[in-house]
Amino acid sequence: MEDNLLKELILRPVGVVRSALKTPLLQTGDADLELPARLEKIREQRRQIKNLVSELVIDPGLEGMLEGIEDFSHIVVVYWPHLIPAGRRGLRQVHPMGRKDLPVRGIFATRSPARPNPVLISTVRLLEREGNVLKVQALDAVDGSPVVDIKPYVEIYQTVENPRFPEWLRQIHRDLEGGP
Amino acid sequence: MEDNLLKELILRPVGVVRSALKTPLLQTGDADLELPARLEKIREQRRQIKNLVSELVIDPGLEGMLEGIEDFSHIVVVYWPHLIPAGRRGLRQVHPMGRKDLPVRGIFATRSPARPNPVLISTVRLLEREGNVLKVQALDAVDGSPVVDIKPYVEIYQTVENPRFPEWLRQIHRDLEGGP
Repeated sequence: MEDNLLKELILRPVGVVRSALKTPLLQTGDADLELPARLEKIREQRRQIKNLVSELVIDPGLEGMLEGIEDFSHIVVVYWPHLIPAGRRGLRQVHPMGRKDLPVRGIFATRSPARPNPVLISTVRLLEREGNVLKVQALDAVDGSPVVDIKPYVEIYQTVENPRFPEWLRQIHRDLEGGP
Repeated sequence: MEDNLLKELILRPVGVVRSALKTPLLQTGDADLELPARLEKIREQRRQIKNLVSELVIDPGLEGMLEGIEDFSHIVVVYWPHLIPAGRRGLRQVHPMGRKDLPVRGIFATRSPARPNPVLISTVRLLEREGNVLKVQALDAVDGSPVVDIKPYVEIYQTVENPRFPEWLRQIHRDLEGGP
């Protein structure tokens, strides 16, 4: 394609995640679990993460860039899933959440961490700032994940009216949350 | 700091933005405008962008990765602000939106496009998919911006209860939207 597509873009991590979460939520081996066991495992992980407190340790040389972030209750964390093998960045299509009972979909139509440019985005509650360290709640990033960017959560950038979702995603929500 | 912070991460654009928007919304020269003129310019730009239809032209070789994205009404576009000079990635603190009447804040506490790793995130309405081209509404990316990633908008990843914002951000909203 065009010139812009040939040019590599370089990121330099600005910090690192410190978390009790040591392994990715879904793993390749989990594909062998029967659906009920798999769902129960995911539900349990979601319960744990909901109350998990992690730290974002930002490069002390960049501490001034955090000035004023403590006035926001929520921040957007952009991070790199470093435990996903580089070879999986070429994956084209997957069963959502590895569930073979759901139709295969393109990677861009899923939130799979294995994607061409694995920059993952989580919006989390900021509990506290101590100098260059941010304490956050319910971050799904694994311990050691490089932090790519921190942004304040600002509603104007996320205004979504009447969102529409595919049936397979509603199925996943029903299976995890119960309900209709 | 630690090893993870020394390692560069490489992105390869997966597509490019085609838009009638040719220059960044706020420019350095605008800092000379008096506040009322500056606000009027921003308001006018926001009106234009609200109805702007842009195209995300994805690398045809990756078209299969889009399969099923048309079942979502909204997508998250991750893109690179290529017109921001690389030298500005070292900027530590700014007046939000370049407004000298507002207190200086760290880059991570703002949505400034000039940041150490300028991966910008916009949630937009997906109007249509034609093969490898996505038509979207109200994208603030400039023509030619490299597309880094496309994700479906999934509410579960953005749940935010009772967000709290700093006074300077409320001031910006009041100035742009009117109201108390």
